[in-house]
Amino acid sequence: MRQSHLLATTLREAPAEAETVNHQLLLRAGYIRQLAAGIYTYLPLGRRVLRKIEAIVREEMDAAGAQELLMPSMQPAELWKESERYEVYGKELMKLSDRHDREFVLGPTHEEVITSLMGEVSSYRKLPITVYQIGTKFRDERRPRSGLMRGREFLMKDAYSFDTGWEGLDDTYSRMYKAYQRIFERCGLVYRAVHADAGAIGGQGETHEFMAISGIGEDTIAVCPACDYAANLEQAEVHTEAEAVQRNVSNQPGAEKFHTPGLRTIDQLEQELQIAPDQVMKTLIYQGGGKTFAVLVRGDHEVNEVKVRNYIGASEIALADSETVQAAAFVESGYVGPVGLPVTLLVDRAVAAMTSGITGAGERDFHLRDVVPGRDFALEHVADFRTAEEGETCPVCGKGVLHFQQGIEIGHIFKLGTKYSEKLGASVLDANGRSKPMIMGCYGIGISRLLAAVAEQNNDGQGLIWPAALAPYRVHILLMSVQDEVQTAAAEALYEQLAQLGIEVLLDDRDERAGVKFKDSILMGIPVTIVVGKAAAEGKVEFMDRRSNSKEVIDIAEAVSRVTAGRNR
Amino acid sequence: MRQSHLLATTLREAPAEAETVNHQLLLRAGYIRQLAAGIYTYLPLGRRVLRKIEAIVREEMDAAGAQELLMPSMQPAELWKESERYEVYGKELMKLSDRHDREFVLGPTHEEVITSLMGEVSSYRKLPITVYQIGTKFRDERRPRSGLMRGREFLMKDAYSFDTGWEGLDDTYSRMYKAYQRIFERCGLVYRAVHADAGAIGGQGETHEFMAISGIGEDTIAVCPACDYAANLEQAEVHTEAEAVQRNVSNQPGAEKFHTPGLRTIDQLEQELQIAPDQVMKTLIYQGGGKTFAVLVRGDHEVNEVKVRNYIGASEIALADSETVQAAAFVESGYVGPVGLPVTLLVDRAVAAMTSGITGAGERDFHLRDVVPGRDFALEHVADFRTAEEGETCPVCGKGVLHFQQGIEIGHIFKLGTKYSEKLGASVLDANGRSKPMIMGCYGIGISRLLAAVAEQNNDGQGLIWPAALAPYRVHILLMSVQDEVQTAAAEALYEQLAQLGIEVLLDDRDERAGVKFKDSILMGIPVTIVVGKAAAEGKVEFMDRRSNSKEVIDIAEAVSRVTAGRNR
Repeated sequence: MRQSHLLATTLREAPAEAETVNHQLLLRAGYIRQLAAGIYTYLPLGRRVLRKIEAIVREEMDAAGAQELLMPSMQPAELWKESERYEVYGKELMKLSDRHDREFVLGPTHEEVITSLMGEVSSYRKLPITVYQIGTKFRDERRPRSGLMRGREFLMKDAYSFDTGWEGLDDTYSRMYKAYQRIFERCGLVYRAVHADAGAIGGQGETHEFMAISGIGEDTIAVCPACDYAANLEQAEVHTEAEAVQRNVSNQPGAEKFHTPGLRTIDQLEQELQIAPDQVMKTLIYQGGGKTFAVLVRGDHEVNEVKVRNYIGASEIALADSETVQAAAFVESGYVGPVGLPVTLLVDRAVAAMTSGITGAGERDFHLRDVVPGRDFALEHVADFRTAEEGETCPVCGKGVLHFQQGIEIGHIFKLGTKYSEKLGASVLDANGRSKPMIMGCYGIGISRLLAAVAEQNNDGQGLIWPAALAPYRVHILLMSVQDEVQTAAAEALYEQLAQLGIEVLLDDRDERAGVKFKDSILMGIPVTIVVGKAAAEGKVEFMDRRSNSKEVIDIAEAVSRVTAGRNR
Repeated sequence: MRQSHLLATTLREAPAEAETVNHQLLLRAGYIRQLAAGIYTYLPLGRRVLRKIEAIVREEMDAAGAQELLMPSMQPAELWKESERYEVYGKELMKLSDRHDREFVLGPTHEEVITSLMGEVSSYRKLPITVYQIGTKFRDERRPRSGLMRGREFLMKDAYSFDTGWEGLDDTYSRMYKAYQRIFERCGLVYRAVHADAGAIGGQGETHEFMAISGIGEDTIAVCPACDYAANLEQAEVHTEAEAVQRNVSNQPGAEKFHTPGLRTIDQLEQELQIAPDQVMKTLIYQGGGKTFAVLVRGDHEVNEVKVRNYIGASEIALADSETVQAAAFVESGYVGPVGLPVTLLVDRAVAAMTSGITGAGERDFHLRDVVPGRDFALEHVADFRTAEEGETCPVCGKGVLHFQQGIEIGHIFKLGTKYSEKLGASVLDANGRSKPMIMGCYGIGISRLLAAVAEQNNDGQGLIWPAALAPYRVHILLMSVQDEVQTAAAEALYEQLAQLGIEVLLDDRDERAGVKFKDSILMGIPVTIVVGKAAAEGKVEFMDRRSNSKEVIDIAEAVSRVTAGRNR
């Protein structure tokens, strides 16, 4: 391709709304352009990278035995009502009506469509089947951001598996897990597979997220350096043994009320009365699943709402508003306590393990001290309800100390079970002629987000540095002076020769100054740059490696053989 | 691929709504499934054919120097208002609003997006640029039909070219024209390029449609067997010379009113009064472009509304309703005539060439005879306003006799000129520093419709017959008895061997009767079928060619070498 006619305008400055490095560089280097908030055009350079990612994904999906198909974006709203996700997705679902006022949604995912389609498979012998597609998804994000990271129209690879039993799903899941590892490795990503939460998709089993490690990631991952445990912080378990404390209730003094006027927060208690936060039991009133309930965690801990949500089996939970708190606890928040509280108490294990502690008194301007779990309030619902903290012991090996990283979710795999197959009638007759719902899994990769994650991990602030497998071109030839006949002839000959050899090559044949060409080349991040300048008269060029920043003047023939030797990098 | 796990259920009967052969067979053979009216899922077999079409299109577009990009489906409605197409497209435009009530359309085409994007190209030296994309389009058809032929969500290749002048556009257009020829030839289509009308896209120059010849086609094409003239009937010109008649007005008697009670149609005049239709001048009142006007054609001719629309420069025209006719002509339709009619008269050349004729009298139950064009009514607007008829002389060579064919529009190329570049601000500075709007072309191929057209042209009623270049698999191995170890071993070995050789092969390893396997194989239409049955014990298989229907028992090794020899067919 000749750069003189390439649709790629480089920008000296990134638009102000681009806050992340990948977003800035992809805009500045002419890979993408914004059409509307969260909606992007992929310019030719960006499209080429996308195509490479798509090719890798296809190869690995095909190798894992998945069959490619293509499902529509426009999906009848009834299907989403049948699966009971129409409401759950809420405003994030893009909705439209056709000219006959029939309601449709623009698919953010395709469980409904594929599951209802699978209704035509009737025999267990046809299973397992795994299908996948690469296509456009829509999600009406409240606040689209970070360029391709969180868009409203984006590219996904989504796959769906159908097995006759859970063992079959285990095999399929493991095959997909490995395919995902190969995909992300081939894309040159630094990533981690972590235990995760099923969220709105609603799985009944195991689920993993694949996280590209990056400071701009929206997710926090807890990682154990001693074993291979890694989990999304939403999901990271808390090591149990440290909290299994013996308690002798009979030795404890009775609970006692004390005056704490205006002291409603843990901070205030600590500052005014020198009470250590880990001596306090925080009582928070929540609503969810049609109920009001309380969650107790230690004063120095945070409630993990995902764990609470999963425990009570609600799709959404939220802190109660002040009116609800008043109605449920007869006091404003800050003085709520578990003693005599007439709602269900979910007690974090760390609270249950306390000998005694301080709680709100259920009365304005008063707290209680010497409150004893199990004596002064019920321990019917004790579980892990808090967020793990950096520095805690690994919940799996019990040896390592958890540390935290930020990650960009680039893939997510779920064991769905029968959630959709039961609702949408995808069942098979087993060997005994009995009808059984198919056991499903689903598997996503954010194709456009992956592009952004690779760009975020591979740059030096001056420009992008593409891994060879994803680079839009392998070689960037910079013709220093288009007025110079010798240079022009040498650059054109090299361009033709490399193209003949099947090397993807971009020739900067623009009538621009050398400085502009170098700057643009560094910005675009093609792995190898060959500079054809004055030395061309002696048959020599400058050979530059974008990643190592190395430069060397070598014979043109040597440049060609270096490029072809590295072809499969 | 093993058919036992292929997601492709064959159907004995096609659903009643499938009226065309391609639609019936694509459904029955498990290539597509309907999700909603005009909205389809491409099952794995269908997806494979689509991918082959996409690959051919990409190769030819790349070879023609076009750059691939990818534009979003969600387009801000403002862009369509700027280009003044928001109203023109009307109900066919799929519209939606996001959570902030901002209006979007789902793109049926991308002139607006690409033209506004091109605003960032400022120098004439960057041009010419041609870009293309392969993606999903949306169009809210009033009556989706014929399966993939006229869908509401469909796949298109669309391309857009930007030149500095009309000469440049001529070159680009011709390059695209040739690329289209290669694409359709490689897809094995019987097709014709025809002169066409620009329709709602609104070109300012030449435009051609590429028509797959088929009895189910919605378009009629007029073709000259003597020269290479071919045109959409909407556009087909009428040969002029036959109509250039000398007229001597002074010899003619004056116009005379005669009584025609209740005779309002040409048929009635012919039957009751033995008046030949070609002696009558029909006067039809139309509305369009904010005006009411009359069109005169001979009684045996039909008004061509496309020609009329283009002549008056309106985007839409329609026959006036009875009230409008009454108001404009002071009489009901049937008795309207040109004499004294107070609206603009568009006179077809064939009428202008009549010495005299019969018209409505502008008075109920009366007609006029001996009405002389130019004497009794004005000949200010004389042009070709009628539809050409089969059997007429070719308008180009003047020798051949036009015959008609039906065609499916699979491609359309337009010289757009500056219609969009002026409205959306895509201009460049020329060599003298003057700003000039870019000269545009646009070029579409209906990818999913092309699949249907190939299926419509390649079948024998029993099933599909894919051209090798588009077949989902090259070879279909039918294992006759999965219980037979010899047959199974031979089929598996052949399957592995062909796969190793890079041949795409489908193995029917289902536990089904031979009859079922043969029927399904014929339905699916894979070019070569190799039957592994009892003769496998002697190292022999049956080699079947789907198109020629030939069958031959040969050695397995011979079967392999026949397949590999035909690899590039």
